[in-house]
Amino acid sequence: MPTLVMKFGGTSVANMDRIRRVAKRIGVEVAKGYDVIVILSAMSGKTNELVGWVEETAPIYDAREYDAVVSSGENVTAGLMALTLDAMDVPARSWQGWQVPVQTTSVHSAARINDISTENINAKFAEGMKVAVVAGFQGISEEGRITTLGRGGSDTTAVAFTAAFGAERCDIYTDVDGVYTTDPRITDKARKLDKIAFEEMLELASLGAKVLQTRSVELAMRFKVRLRVLSSFEEQTENSGTLVCDEEEIMEDNVVAGVACQRDEAKITLISVADRPGIAAAIFVPLSKAGVNVDMIVQNISEEGRTDMTFSCPVDHVARAESAIAEIKSSGEINFRDLIIDKDVAKVSVVGIGMRSHTGVAAQMFEVLHKEGINIKVITTSEIKISVLVDRKYMELAVQALHDAFELDKAG
Amino acid sequence: MPTLVMKFGGTSVANMDRIRRVAKRIGVEVAKGYDVIVILSAMSGKTNELVGWVEETAPIYDAREYDAVVSSGENVTAGLMALTLDAMDVPARSWQGWQVPVQTTSVHSAARINDISTENINAKFAEGMKVAVVAGFQGISEEGRITTLGRGGSDTTAVAFTAAFGAERCDIYTDVDGVYTTDPRITDKARKLDKIAFEEMLELASLGAKVLQTRSVELAMRFKVRLRVLSSFEEQTENSGTLVCDEEEIMEDNVVAGVACQRDEAKITLISVADRPGIAAAIFVPLSKAGVNVDMIVQNISEEGRTDMTFSCPVDHVARAESAIAEIKSSGEINFRDLIIDKDVAKVSVVGIGMRSHTGVAAQMFEVLHKEGINIKVITTSEIKISVLVDRKYMELAVQALHDAFELDKAG
Repeated sequence: MPTLVMKFGGTSVANMDRIRRVAKRIGVEVAKGYDVIVILSAMSGKTNELVGWVEETAPIYDAREYDAVVSSGENVTAGLMALTLDAMDVPARSWQGWQVPVQTTSVHSAARINDISTENINAKFAEGMKVAVVAGFQGISEEGRITTLGRGGSDTTAVAFTAAFGAERCDIYTDVDGVYTTDPRITDKARKLDKIAFEEMLELASLGAKVLQTRSVELAMRFKVRLRVLSSFEEQTENSGTLVCDEEEIMEDNVVAGVACQRDEAKITLISVADRPGIAAAIFVPLSKAGVNVDMIVQNISEEGRTDMTFSCPVDHVARAESAIAEIKSSGEINFRDLIIDKDVAKVSVVGIGMRSHTGVAAQMFEVLHKEGINIKVITTSEIKISVLVDRKYMELAVQALHDAFELDKAG
Repeated sequence: MPTLVMKFGGTSVANMDRIRRVAKRIGVEVAKGYDVIVILSAMSGKTNELVGWVEETAPIYDAREYDAVVSSGENVTAGLMALTLDAMDVPARSWQGWQVPVQTTSVHSAARINDISTENINAKFAEGMKVAVVAGFQGISEEGRITTLGRGGSDTTAVAFTAAFGAERCDIYTDVDGVYTTDPRITDKARKLDKIAFEEMLELASLGAKVLQTRSVELAMRFKVRLRVLSSFEEQTENSGTLVCDEEEIMEDNVVAGVACQRDEAKITLISVADRPGIAAAIFVPLSKAGVNVDMIVQNISEEGRTDMTFSCPVDHVARAESAIAEIKSSGEINFRDLIIDKDVAKVSVVGIGMRSHTGVAAQMFEVLHKEGINIKVITTSEIKISVLVDRKYMELAVQALHDAFELDKAG
C-alpha cells in the first residue's frame, strides 16, 4: 500500500468543525488507496496559552517541563482526529511521540529527531488501520522525557515521517494555497508555482515567504522528500498547491522563480573603521549577543587601513544595535569616524536555480531598477539569489518591475 | 527519608495563582523533611472541555482515544507545578502515567491500577529530587495505550501511590476542610471529625458526603493507607482535616459517627405481587438495565403467595422505573395489583462502627423520630448503618434531632 503523509497546522484544526473538514480530506486520500500518516499541530491559540502559563512560573524555567506542558495540545488534536475518522468509518488511531517512538536529542524545546521507529505503526497498518494520527512537534529523549522540536516543528515531524516510512509525498496543508512568484498583495500578476526547487524554497522562506519552516525544507532536501504545500480551506484538484522538490523534477526553465521582499529593514554603516584582521568578528559577535538579527553584510575595499562596514537588520533591532556598537566603541575594541543609520530601506531579492547556468540576471535586475529610477543602496549575491536594499517607498515598484521583466506571470 | 503523598483537585490548581499557593503548601512539607509525591487533577473545567470535544465526534466513541485526549489536562498541571516548585528552589519533576509507569488494566476510561513502579521515581529521589509531581487519573495499558481511571480517579491514584511507596500518609486536599458529623447546612452543630474509620467513610460517601471517591476509600481500607482530607484553601495546623483510618486508630467512642441524608428520593411499591422464586430478579434486573439506580429494597412477609415489594430510587429515575415496570408487567413476567409511587421522601441514615458492639441504636433512632412526630416509611439496616425513608419535609428536622440525640456535637 503506498503511504502518504499529510500535515495540518493549528488553524486547520482550530475547532471541531474544522477537524471534521480535515477528516473528510484525509478520507479522500484513504479512498484512493493510501495508508495515511497524519501529523497535527495543536488547536491554534492552545500552544500560546500553555506557553503563557509556563512563562508565568519563572523567567528562566526547566525546558523539560516546558516540553511536557506544551506538547499536550498536539495530543488533544491527535485523539480528536482519530475519533472523528473512526466516526466516519475510517480506521484510525492516535500516536503520541513516545508511542511511535520518535527518538530525539535531549536539547529540550529545540530537539532534533534522531530516529523514527516504523515498526509499531506499520504493524497497525498491517492489522487494517488506515490512518495513523501523530501528534506533531514532539518526541522522546534517551532519558525518557518528552521533547519538543521548537515552533514550527510539526512541519519537520511531517518531513521526517515521510523519509522514515518512504512515503510517496508529504502534503503540508496550510492557510495559503501554495508558493507564489511574489507576494500577491504587491502585484496581482503573482502566479502560483506548480513546482519549486528545495534551494529556491529555502531562499524564499528565509526571505519572508513564511509558508514552510526552514528546517523542514532543509530536511526534505537532504532526504529528497517531495513536499506539497496546499490550502486546507479549498477543494483540492490535481494541480492544487505547489510541489517543493528536487530541481531535477522541475521542467520549467524560468531562470528566476520568484521575487521576494522584506519591508522593515534598516541599513547601518560604520564609516571609516580602522581595519585590522578580526574586525568583522569584533563588530558582529557583540551584535549577535545583543540579539540583533544581522542579514546582509557588505564591506567595501579598504583604503589606507580604513574601511566602511555596512549591514542590514530589522528596523526594530536598530536600538539594540546602536547600544551594542556604542559599547564596543567605548571599550576601544573598534574605532570608526561616523555611524550612519537609514531606517527607511527594504530588501528585494530575485531567486532562481536557473541563475547557476544563466549569466546576466544581476545585470538585468540592476537595469530594470535603474530604468524605474530606483537607487540601489546595497547588493549581495549568492549562487541562486541576488538581493538589494532600496528606499522603502520603492519596494512595491521594484517588485512589480522585476516580476514583469522576468516574465514571472507566465509559466516557463 | 519519610514519604508523603499529597493530592490536589481541579479547583486547587484552577489557575497559576492557585498553583503557586499549592506549591507553597508542598514546600512546607518538604521543609519538614519529607520526600513528597504530589498527585494532581487537571485545572477545573479543562477535563469537561476535553470531554465535550470528544462527545462531539460521535455518540459512541473509542474509549482509547477518549483517554488519550482527556489525560492531557493532568499533564499540563503536573508540568506547571514542577516548574513552580523549581522556581521556589524545591527540586521537582513531573511524571506522566507512562513515565512512572502506572500499569493498569485495558478497561479504558475505567481502568484499574495493576502496578505502580517505584524504581524510576525513587532513583530521582536518591538523586536529590524532593517532589515527584504525578499526573493523576491516568496510566498505561499492557498494549502501551494511555488509560484513565474514570472520574475521581486522581484520589485513587493518590491512594495507590501511598501504598506502593509505603508513604506515611496520603493528604487529599479538597474544597472542604474535612468530614463532618452531618451536613453543616442542616445544623450548625455539625462538628468536623478528627478521625473516621474507613467503613464509616464508605457509608457516608455513598450516602452523599461527596468528599472522597468511594473507590479510593476502598483501596485505602484494603492497604491500610492513612488518608487525610483537608482544605487547600485554609492554613493548616496539626488538627486540620479529618483522618480516615483503620478503626483501631480511633479512640473516640461515639457509637454513631455521623448522620447522613439524601433529599431527592422516591419510594415505589408494587402491591400484592404474585410471589415465586426469582421474583426479585424478575423485577430488579430490568430496572438495572433501564438505568434505574435502586437503593433500598424491602420485601414484607409473603401471605397466601403474594407479597409487597418496595424500593427507593432518585426522584429523577422514577419515569424510567415506571416504564420498565410496565414493560415487565405486560410481558407477563410479573403480576401485581397496584403500583404506589411516593416522590416526596428523603433518606436519613445514622452511621457508626460503634453499632457493632452497641445494641439499641436502632431503637433509639426510631424513638427520636417518633417523638418528633416523624413517620418512618421504610427501614433498612446494615452492620454499621441504619437508614430510614421519611417524608421529605421532615428531613432536616430528623437530621437535627438525631444529631442532638446521639450527641454528635460533642467529641466522644
